[in-house]
Amino acid sequence: MVIVLKDGASKKQIDELINWLTRFEVKSNLVEGVHSKIIGLVGDTTSVDIESVQAKEIVETVKRVQEPYKNANRRFHPEDTVIDVRGRKLGGDRLQVIAGPCSVETEEQTIKTAIAVKQAGATMLRGGAFKPRTSPYAFQGLGKEGIDILKKARAETGLPIVTEIMDVSDLDLFEDVDIIQVGARNSQNFTLLKALGRCDKPVLLKRGLSGTLQELLMSAEYIMSEGNSKVILCERGIRTFETATRNILDLAAVPLLKQKTHLPITIDPSHATGIASLVEPCALAATAIGAHALEIEVHIDPEHAWSDGAQSLTPEQFAATMEKLRSMAEFVGRPVDITE
Amino acid sequence: MVIVLKDGASKKQIDELINWLTRFEVKSNLVEGVHSKIIGLVGDTTSVDIESVQAKEIVETVKRVQEPYKNANRRFHPEDTVIDVRGRKLGGDRLQVIAGPCSVETEEQTIKTAIAVKQAGATMLRGGAFKPRTSPYAFQGLGKEGIDILKKARAETGLPIVTEIMDVSDLDLFEDVDIIQVGARNSQNFTLLKALGRCDKPVLLKRGLSGTLQELLMSAEYIMSEGNSKVILCERGIRTFETATRNILDLAAVPLLKQKTHLPITIDPSHATGIASLVEPCALAATAIGAHALEIEVHIDPEHAWSDGAQSLTPEQFAATMEKLRSMAEFVGRPVDITE
Amino acid sequence: MVIVLKDGASKKQIDELINWLTRFEVKSNLVEGVHSKIIGLVGDTTSVDIESVQAKEIVETVKRVQEPYKNANRRFHPEDTVIDVRGRKLGGDRLQVIAGPCSVETEEQTIKTAIAVKQAGATMLRGGAFKPRTSPYAFQGLGKEGIDILKKARAETGLPIVTEIMDVSDLDLFEDVDIIQVGARNSQNFTLLKALGRCDKPVLLKRGLSGTLQELLMSAEYIMSEGNSKVILCERGIRTFETATRNILDLAAVPLLKQKTHLPITIDPSHATGIASLVEPCALAATAIGAHALEIEVHIDPEHAWSDGAQSLTPEQFAATMEKLRSMAEFVGRPVDITE
Amino acid sequence: MVIVLKDGASKKQIDELINWLTRFEVKSNLVEGVHSKIIGLVGDTTSVDIESVQAKEIVETVKRVQEPYKNANRRFHPEDTVIDVRGRKLGGDRLQVIAGPCSVETEEQTIKTAIAVKQAGATMLRGGAFKPRTSPYAFQGLGKEGIDILKKARAETGLPIVTEIMDVSDLDLFEDVDIIQVGARNSQNFTLLKALGRCDKPVLLKRGLSGTLQELLMSAEYIMSEGNSKVILCERGIRTFETATRNILDLAAVPLLKQKTHLPITIDPSHATGIASLVEPCALAATAIGAHALEIEVHIDPEHAWSDGAQSLTPEQFAATMEKLRSMAEFVGRPVDITE
Repeated sequence: MVIVLKDGASKKQIDELINWLTRFEVKSNLVEGVHSKIIGLVGDTTSVDIESVQAKEIVETVKRVQEPYKNANRRFHPEDTVIDVRGRKLGGDRLQVIAGPCSVETEEQTIKTAIAVKQAGATMLRGGAFKPRTSPYAFQGLGKEGIDILKKARAETGLPIVTEIMDVSDLDLFEDVDIIQVGARNSQNFTLLKALGRCDKPVLLKRGLSGTLQELLMSAEYIMSEGNSKVILCERGIRTFETATRNILDLAAVPLLKQKTHLPITIDPSHATGIASLVEPCALAATAIGAHALEIEVHIDPEHAWSDGAQSLTPEQFAATMEKLRSMAEFVGRPVDITE
Repeated sequence: MVIVLKDGASKKQIDELINWLTRFEVKSNLVEGVHSKIIGLVGDTTSVDIESVQAKEIVETVKRVQEPYKNANRRFHPEDTVIDVRGRKLGGDRLQVIAGPCSVETEEQTIKTAIAVKQAGATMLRGGAFKPRTSPYAFQGLGKEGIDILKKARAETGLPIVTEIMDVSDLDLFEDVDIIQVGARNSQNFTLLKALGRCDKPVLLKRGLSGTLQELLMSAEYIMSEGNSKVILCERGIRTFETATRNILDLAAVPLLKQKTHLPITIDPSHATGIASLVEPCALAATAIGAHALEIEVHIDPEHAWSDGAQSLTPEQFAATMEKLRSMAEFVGRPVDITE
Repeated sequence: MVIVLKDGASKKQIDELINWLTRFEVKSNLVEGVHSKIIGLVGDTTSVDIESVQAKEIVETVKRVQEPYKNANRRFHPEDTVIDVRGRKLGGDRLQVIAGPCSVETEEQTIKTAIAVKQAGATMLRGGAFKPRTSPYAFQGLGKEGIDILKKARAETGLPIVTEIMDVSDLDLFEDVDIIQVGARNSQNFTLLKALGRCDKPVLLKRGLSGTLQELLMSAEYIMSEGNSKVILCERGIRTFETATRNILDLAAVPLLKQKTHLPITIDPSHATGIASLVEPCALAATAIGAHALEIEVHIDPEHAWSDGAQSLTPEQFAATMEKLRSMAEFVGRPVDITE
Repeated sequence: MVIVLKDGASKKQIDELINWLTRFEVKSNLVEGVHSKIIGLVGDTTSVDIESVQAKEIVETVKRVQEPYKNANRRFHPEDTVIDVRGRKLGGDRLQVIAGPCSVETEEQTIKTAIAVKQAGATMLRGGAFKPRTSPYAFQGLGKEGIDILKKARAETGLPIVTEIMDVSDLDLFEDVDIIQVGARNSQNFTLLKALGRCDKPVLLKRGLSGTLQELLMSAEYIMSEGNSKVILCERGIRTFETATRNILDLAAVPLLKQKTHLPITIDPSHATGIASLVEPCALAATAIGAHALEIEVHIDPEHAWSDGAQSLTPEQFAATMEKLRSMAEFVGRPVDITE
């Protein structure tokens, strides 16, 4: 950590600051120049609260050198984390394709879709039972019933199920879910993250609408610092000035995150673009750039989907996309996992 | 609502779409041109799910004409909402100044600050007991103990207390709080919003980090649609590419929101800028542009604040700011409310 | 400037780097810690090219401590710059109100508007002769003829004229203009900025659509480093995710820029919001927060304006706004300048 | 184009508006509902100035249905545009790789780099002679001398040369250049675009820092409407809140632009990320998603580059990247073009 001091900081003030800093068990080095003075902090600065340093009167700016996350940090865990989900490995040398409807609407729709995506080669099933919708007047999801339907679809197809939690109070309902998803709007719901940190379940953590990669890693750190190290990161597009696509898919995040963390990385091209015709090219590019998993919305009848129809693929479209994905995944050396 | 159809939509497809639209009890009008066809929907379109329309194969784009919120909409409630908080009126012809520390740290710090801000003329006390912090290693707030300290500060000063809730499960602890605050990171925590909608307590709802004004109003609608109409909106800066200030304070939101809604509007210049020296000028501008309330961080000793010290005013700075605010508020015809 | 070194940088590499840095005539101080090593550079680092330092293999990150601008820097020029424009002072203790149409359309329209804004109390006349339009099919401005019309309007009213330049090759046409404006889209047209730096004319420099305040100051530096110190900065709204207003007006930029620079600061509420009904409240807030000048679009007949009609005030609206502005400006101690 | 009218628009006002609209040679259809009235405009609305419609008092909002560009529009030109550059085809079934240094620094550096990138398989040479730098104190490029050096490098290697223009007044110097590049900061320098429209040279047009795809296409339209149809679009990262990479690379723009336009599309992973280690994965993903060309910065000695060293590849790194690119390009069916 580097602390730049204001012009005119007195020796006494600087000594006081250096003395105050000893509480964090870091070593301070003062660099004095003509126009500016700098204190370099060395040691483990994870616990140094950057805001309290910033608040000191003689401090101009503070810059962290070390990343503020430990458990998620590749520096301290050089090996890739590989998470086992009913035999499928997330984070390893196989590509996982998580497909299914935005919302669980009916048993028939869900099971039909599950069977279709499995036939096409998907390795896990997604489906929303609790739906975070901008409008209180829009369909809010089937809740517990939706989770029960997903379990039936799993029984039918063998596909592990991934579904989103919206509140700590619903946690019991997710006991038999395979991967618990945290949506973009809950990416900094710290109470929820801590509670998930006390579970022994894989958590698929989505990046916030305007979340930085460092914030995503800090949210992962919330979960991990409570003991659950099974965190899967998911880039699903960020919010910008552009309106041609729903969000902007940040694919460079994949190789950058791989440098910074050992956690598996998923790409959700459906939410990132909001446009069905862009899902396939983005999924191919995500595979080419090294994603460990893809999350793709598929609906047996997108025109009648209760949510997100415009970005959902039909089973036929998905099958065609899987064909190309399988080929690309093979080509880049991380073949799509095999079901059965 | 205006539905633009794709080139080549057949008469049969259009008829099917118009037929399907009847379920929403709106009237469809087809406009046919050489290059494009448009369907204009008239009637109450609040309940029309824009996404399911968008998902239809022959639909190019959909645009809402009517706002999708009703309870928060000035069109249907022309009169300003005025919320009574222990005798102080929020939304009326008095300016409320909500001041206090970012975090409740100790009883002494909180009560000293409360006394100081009251003496300076603040009309309500703010203080965080549950703190949403980016890092799991940073101070997370005193929780229940913090709320108890706030109540003591209220007993001491008579100032109503405003404090942030982070999760539905803590709701019981807020029973005796005067205004429940929802932070930017929970602005679209819909489960929490619905629960607050079933309370009979004023809710100060902050705009999300990258929340649009329409999303803010839809979040208000979540609360209101459950029965609680005591919602106070708060602009606290939005996230952009600029790094010179923590966020960008969107003051034009005040007059724009006043056109769109009848709810009171608060400005938080402390979080918006993150820089103590900008709080006073922004608070003055917020008063000039018509805010009903200001939320300002004050700490008896910002250098030793446990959070957000860099943006906190000292009691002396706050007293000087209040002096100018009183004068500006008087000048624009919404004088600072009187305590006692 | 602070240089953070990568783990594992060898003593030899560090020595080489320190040796290489001597070319910039700055002093290097090495701070060695357990986890990280830092070099603090002291002296005048304005000329150190941050990119070439960043490119060194052993460099992790570089952070500037000193601002990279000199001429525009308040640190080296503590006194406010006051620019005289035909007797009106920009940057001093008077508020300048620059009003007029977005585009110069006809002599009649321009002169009528000029007379109207003068009567209402405007102190300068704005009007576009060269118009940067997104579409090549939209009205592109009258060019030279437009400037001639502005001069007639000046002869008629005595108001100094402000108009936008789009290309260096047109510079001759601006010889008799009082203030040359550089639009947001040319804010980093460095060739143009350098050419304006060799003029002896005030330049009103607009912030780029996504320009940081530091970039704005660096663009000012381009002009000033060539010898022209008459630069007026203008905040006109930045581009974000929000679509409710055309841009987001960053009013906190006013007090922040005042800390960093001695140059006068203008606010353009018309382009910032794009909505006529928001111009007055934003202009009042801009005055309250300390702007030295306002730039406001007025059209004798906004409904028939050839550009930007939706954000233009009618002469009647402008007169009403001036009434309030005069009062607010008086109140904050920077009264509107007097014409005649 | 769809015009939504305000509540309470009178029949007389609506008739006047419809009458006024006849000037654009479009047909108006009025849709009347209980809560709102809509006018649908049909016909060629390219020439309808959306702003003047928006300015009408009774108009609530206006929405374009048709795209406002014609020449760049795939609807009117279904076939891909293929641009011949000294025998290499841009926009066709071969991938072009444009490589070279950010800045032309010396003849030796440029020619050595040119030879190296050619050996590695690059198909064109890039190099900046005019450099748009944020700071006036940074290296501004060699200007004319730089272009002469590029020509020598072309003579030496046979690689066509791509270099950036910053101002209309320099146009003569670019007569013998193969592709003229327009940088992000000049993406809406309309005077420059029009002048390039009167050349008979390919123009590589970069997206603005916060330019929408529609604005990029409108800038292309500026060039094309003057007669030059040889426009190559380039996505080079957009500016957002994220600071981990210099910009955010918007790869979904490739398939989306391909739907909207027939022009070739280039990706610049070097400027998009600003980090050398991300260039290869992003280039691979860009190839996978369908880019027609890549622009990659290579420097014989990045540590001593005069600009952008941190994002430049060494010749060795570039050769390794080309190896993988060749394989990926072959795989996706658009093999790297052959030089010689």
